This record gives sequence, structure tokens and C-alpha cells, in this order.
Amino acid sequence: MKLLAIDPGYERIGIAILEKTTGGKETLLYSDCFKTSAKLTFAERLVLIGDEIERVVKKYKPTALAIEKLYFAKNTTTAMGVAEARGVIIYEATKHGCKIYEYTPMEIKVAVTGYGKATKENITFMTQKLIDLPKNKKMIDDELDAIAVGLTCFAREKWK
Amino acid sequence: MKLLAIDPGYERIGIAILEKTTGGKETLLYSDCFKTSAKLTFAERLVLIGDEIERVVKKYKPTALAIEKLYFAKNTTTAMGVAEARGVIIYEATKHGCKIYEYTPMEIKVAVTGYGKATKENITFMTQKLIDLPKNKKMIDDELDAIAVGLTCFAREKWK
Repeated sequence: MKLLAIDPGYERIGIAILEKTTGGKETLLYSDCFKTSAKLTFAERLVLIGDEIERVVKKYKPTALAIEKLYFAKNTTTAMGVAEARGVIIYEATKHGCKIYEYTPMEIKVAVTGYGKATKENITFMTQKLIDLPKNKKMIDDELDAIAVGLTCFAREKWK
Repeated sequence: MKLLAIDPGYERIGIAILEKTTGGKETLLYSDCFKTSAKLTFAERLVLIGDEIERVVKKYKPTALAIEKLYFAKNTTTAMGVAEARGVIIYEATKHGCKIYEYTPMEIKVAVTGYGKATKENITFMTQKLIDLPKNKKMIDDELDAIAVGLTCFAREKWK
């Protein structure tokens, strides 16, 4: 089965497509850090994000979306923007037939490293151990975070 | 010019279409309180909301969206859901050519009642004074709130 995995945001969005074969092998088919310019209005950025999700979903036809759950931190203006972008991402994925799976940062840490207090470096290190990444591509943090969300979904939902 | 005015939410969304003629007359063309069932998944509710915004925008062809700005209150789970729905509403309106105008609850109170500490009853009372409402229809609070956001936009943007 194919999975769209997202590290949500509005400035940088981590996007990954992962596949799990019937044999249980997990493969990364695509990853990108999609960026939108702060020179645009926020509404224009939302449209770019929704259009990009639609493009990726139409191309790879995943049947599920795994996305990080948002917790409100101190910076509520940023949190509101991320929530609005998250709404658009879930909306476009659902419209194109994806079932939605959401995981807290803690659930992702435990699934990928086995440790709820894992650092960003721990997660990056383990993600690279768990799945083959493209050799000649410098991976951006947001991409690795998206892949970690996807691996969490594979680990927890026990798809065959 | 025609304006789509929204009181955002995910359980009840106030939707109004207002028109301001070149003579300055403000008319209510349509209003509704659109509801989504708590029995659906949140993603399904987002799709219903986005589809409804698309339907109204395609039918009435407004050139602007006026929407209430969200402030985070204590209930952050609700606030996150409203922000996600808000993202979908702004996304669909922008995709269909609307320019976005956002107002804080305070700006709406001042524009409609002249008083920043106005109660919900004050706003309802003044909204009914400022624009002709359908005589045979019981207006729901969310509809009146949407109309108040629209009247705020007309008052502040000084369209001719």
C-alpha cells in the first residue's frame, strides 16, 4: 500500500510517499521539502500547498495520509497558520480518497527510536537506518520528519 | 460588489452573501447556518465544509471573503479544529478568486455597534437594524454573526 506522509507547516512542508509491499518491505518513492514564499499572502500560500498535495496525490495515488498532530505551543500565531495549512492538506488528501492517520510528536518518537524523549538527531539517525534514502540527495529535516511520520504509521497500523 | 461573509467553525458555520450596489445600498442575498455531524470523521467534515463553500461561491460569484479572525482561547482542541476549517474556507474562496479580509471580534463589535465591549445581543440587535433580513425566516446566531462580519467589511473597506 502507498502512504502520503506529511510534516505540516506553511513555510516548509515535508512531503513523502512511502510504499509497503505485501512482503513487508518499506520503500521511499518520493520526498520533498515544499516551500512557500513569505512574500505571498497567507491565502495564496494555502492555495500553493493544496495544489501541491493534489499534484502528489494524483501522481502517486496513496490510499492513506499520515500527518503529525499539532500541539499548541507559545507562538499561537504560527500554530494557527500551521493548523490552517493542516486543514487544507487533510481536505485535499480526503477528497482524493486517503484515509487519515494522525500521530503526536511523542508517538512518532517512540515508533521510530523506541524512546519518548528522543532528540531531533536521534530521529534523523534512526529514520536513515529504517529505510533506504536516495544516495545522491541531501535530505532536508522536514523531509526526514515526514518519512518518520510515515514509518510510524507503518509500525502502528500493521498493514500487510 | 458581492461578498462572502463567514463565521468560521466546523460544527456550525455561518455563511452569508451580501451585496453593495454602486448607490451604497447593502443587501443580504443569502444566509445559512451550515452544520456538519459529529458522527463523521473530522476529515469528512472538512470535505463537506469545503464543498459547501465551493457551491456557494460558484453560485453567487463573490469577489471577496470576509472572515472572523481566530484567537486562541483555553480550549485549544476546539481552536485547532476551527483553524483547520478556516484554512479550508480561505483555500476554497481564494481558489475561486476571492480576496480575503479578516477581522478580529473587537473590530466586528466596533464596526457594528460602535462599542468594543458589545454583547452578543447588542451585535444581533444592531445587525438587524443595519440590513433588511428575510421576514419569514428564523435567523440562527451563526448566520447573524456572518452578516456582522460582512457589514464590518463594507464599513471598513469603503467600497463604492
